Amino acid sequence: MPTKYEALASDIVNLIADGTLKMGDRLPSVRESVASRGVSPATVFEAYYLLEARGLIEARPRAGYFVKAMPRAREEPRSALPGTGPQDVAVHDIVQSVLGPVRNREFVPLGSAFPNPALFPLERLARGMGSAMRRLDPRQLLEDLSPGNAELRHQLALRMLGHGMSVGTEEIVVTSGAMEALSLSLQAVTSPGDLVAIESPAFYGCLQTLERLRLRAVEVETHPRTGIQIDALAETLQRHPVKACWFMPNFQNPLGALMPMAAKRDLVQLLSRHQIPLIEDDVYAELFFGPERPLPAKAFDRDGWVMHCSSFSKSLAPGYRVGWVSAGRFASRIERLKLMGTLGVSVPAQLAVSHFLKHGAFDKHLRHLRSALANRQQRALRVIEQHFPAGARLTRPEGGYFLWLELPEGVDAMALTEAARARNISLAPGTIFSADRRFAHHVRVNIGHPNEDALEGALRAIGKLVAQAMP
Amino acid sequence: MPTKYEALASDIVNLIADGTLKMGDRLPSVRESVASRGVSPATVFEAYYLLEARGLIEARPRAGYFVKAMPRAREEPRSALPGTGPQDVAVHDIVQSVLGPVRNREFVPLGSAFPNPALFPLERLARGMGSAMRRLDPRQLLEDLSPGNAELRHQLALRMLGHGMSVGTEEIVVTSGAMEALSLSLQAVTSPGDLVAIESPAFYGCLQTLERLRLRAVEVETHPRTGIQIDALAETLQRHPVKACWFMPNFQNPLGALMPMAAKRDLVQLLSRHQIPLIEDDVYAELFFGPERPLPAKAFDRDGWVMHCSSFSKSLAPGYRVGWVSAGRFASRIERLKLMGTLGVSVPAQLAVSHFLKHGAFDKHLRHLRSALANRQQRALRVIEQHFPAGARLTRPEGGYFLWLELPEGVDAMALTEAARARNISLAPGTIFSADRRFAHHVRVNIGHPNEDALEGALRAIGKLVAQAMP
Repeated sequence: MPTKYEALASDIVNLIADGTLKMGDRLPSVRESVASRGVSPATVFEAYYLLEARGLIEARPRAGYFVKAMPRAREEPRSALPGTGPQDVAVHDIVQSVLGPVRNREFVPLGSAFPNPALFPLERLARGMGSAMRRLDPRQLLEDLSPGNAELRHQLALRMLGHGMSVGTEEIVVTSGAMEALSLSLQAVTSPGDLVAIESPAFYGCLQTLERLRLRAVEVETHPRTGIQIDALAETLQRHPVKACWFMPNFQNPLGALMPMAAKRDLVQLLSRHQIPLIEDDVYAELFFGPERPLPAKAFDRDGWVMHCSSFSKSLAPGYRVGWVSAGRFASRIERLKLMGTLGVSVPAQLAVSHFLKHGAFDKHLRHLRSALANRQQRALRVIEQHFPAGARLTRPEGGYFLWLELPEGVDAMALTEAARARNISLAPGTIFSADRRFAHHVRVNIGHPNEDALEGALRAIGKLVAQAMP
Repeated sequence: MPTKYEALASDIVNLIADGTLKMGDRLPSVRESVASRGVSPATVFEAYYLLEARGLIEARPRAGYFVKAMPRAREEPRSALPGTGPQDVAVHDIVQSVLGPVRNREFVPLGSAFPNPALFPLERLARGMGSAMRRLDPRQLLEDLSPGNAELRHQLALRMLGHGMSVGTEEIVVTSGAMEALSLSLQAVTSPGDLVAIESPAFYGCLQTLERLRLRAVEVETHPRTGIQIDALAETLQRHPVKACWFMPNFQNPLGALMPMAAKRDLVQLLSRHQIPLIEDDVYAELFFGPERPLPAKAFDRDGWVMHCSSFSKSLAPGYRVGWVSAGRFASRIERLKLMGTLGVSVPAQLAVSHFLKHGAFDKHLRHLRSALANRQQRALRVIEQHFPAGARLTRPEGGYFLWLELPEGVDAMALTEAARARNISLAPGTIFSADRRFAHHVRVNIGHPNEDALEGALRAIGKLVAQAMP
């Protein structure tokens, strides 16, 4: 239930999106809004502060608030065509070859999967880790290995309760990042050769995991704004012996799509009816620009078929490798696989996160992070609107730090990636987001990484390359 | 090549072992030894200090040095019978059920796989980690993920060079403990259903990994003092389509067996001839009681068939989860699997270890640790000699912190483990060290975990239980 100020902010966002309020327009003054909406001045101020933090409006001294954002001028990318049916997965080599240069410090890493580590409270995190390690009973170094530090799991259960998930501490397994959580979840419910339903386009890490576990993929249609289409999924389940689904309902990578609440509920009900486990990758959910954290599919899970996986790599502690899974009916199977695999998660990293959750004002940090990402997104959208040729289609996600571009007719993503590389800019071509390489005219752009001026310069350069590549 | 003082110490060790020098006997005075051996007084002192550090002799003020150790009175456990041939592996549940209570702080953890974390320089390690994290360029948090922190890999290559292994930095992959190194190595060279040669008895973690990867095991005969028998292995390779070997040539878990140098060389040559990869688990090698670190099999590897796996969990940083593999010809395959799996190793933990290797006097810590473990072993051996009924056979490993007991005829290891549990003592019954549960009359005893008085009390109690259980 949005508060009054969130409702007001949301109305203004819609007026900007549909072009009623144009860039440079002055917003109603606080006094005018109080009169017209029947709310208090404090409510209006809060709404305007929220919009300012998201880069949509700006305050000009002694003049009022003005619209800074562009209307939604460009079209969205088109939905993916129906998939080609079950297929083997072999993407790792191409992923490595195109993402390798991301590590070069000379590059503007628009192809990176990570936000800029400088956006994180690294010093506070390290100090908290140090203090927790100094107070540690040495025996805890062994006891905390698996299923994980008790205090951390308790904090996670509390946080998830706040996000609409009633998850017992005992079903939480701490993992080495979300990747291990997702991979263990998949192993818990499949055997080599089994078929897994994934999104189209899908996160390449998902494809790589399927490849490593020798699983087959069937890609399900998505909408670039609302993600998985329930009808298409239902049809896939009728046609193929799907053993598990791996989806990202909140700010999907690469689309940034956000499944509507009702679709998430339908998704969970459909899969529960078929008794098919859902592996939910929820690593971007905290990076919402809207009024509140979107619910995960896990919030609708009554029968324990959803394995909810997340991590702190994108929200607090990049490189620490602390993730977890709330695994419902599969918790003991997953803990078992983890004991047989990596044994446990680095204890200093677990303590760092646990200490920060308890003492570090995590929510305050998240507000700063979201605001920084929302601002970058606005800036990136403006640059693309102005500097990319017509025919380039573009998402405008409500969270995360990716944009998904459909290039104009005839422009090849791999060739564009090559050309960008020659200018020290990395890109993630659509090719790596599908088992059958179908997104040959799409690129994923990371707007969360470089400094803002470098971001703008790199985007202008890409815009030029796209124009040059047009037939 | 042992130095003069090591040669003198080694002679005295042999005189104690064969009973020529008995407990309480006075050693030759320094002056006498100088005269009889033609060495300097400093050499004699160094030899006596070494023997004292290992708990074999003690200084009595104004009287000289006296033998503290018992002669090798008890027989060694008998060698395992030839294996039953290839078999499926399903040990995890029994491992969990017998090792579960190890985590209870009320227990004396003779069944634990870990040495006492209080034996490690935890505070210095944590301080170094803090200082390294504060000086960290945030970009390193992503760059160090895989294949690992460059400085750490460089330090590892240097250390291994000192241990007779010429390993390039580029073939070292940092992993989440040795367990991930071993598991990735196995995945790199096998497919589900393949056959892997293991030791008999084998570390249960090895059996669990085979189980998780759906591999089959063939157990190879070992000698309790010298480990894998090359003849038996050669015969196994003739008879069965072995895809890989997983062995622990140095201080094998649970036997403590140390393969002689020539046997290691023969092992590597035999496997290279057959083009069969060797996965070498070398996690205990730093815990030697002899004059120098035993060479790993990897030191004899000319053709890159050996994947040498180790970690800092038993030598420096329990719970940090920092291991590595020097993977020879399989390095890129392993890095690939790691990228598709857990992605990378927690950066703070990598920096902690790297910082300690560079600034922390690792070798000084290791000398203390070895001496503490050697002393505990001496004390445990004395207690067992005195308080266990005749018929119990016993190893006397030259490193590590395990003893392997063969119980007297008719005493069942699982029943003994149950009886011990009722007295708040855990044990690791032989049953968990074999796919076909053949070591039903053996137990592994951890002498590195509890404080020394608790260790002695628990061993006396176990001795009584064994006596009571005898038919």
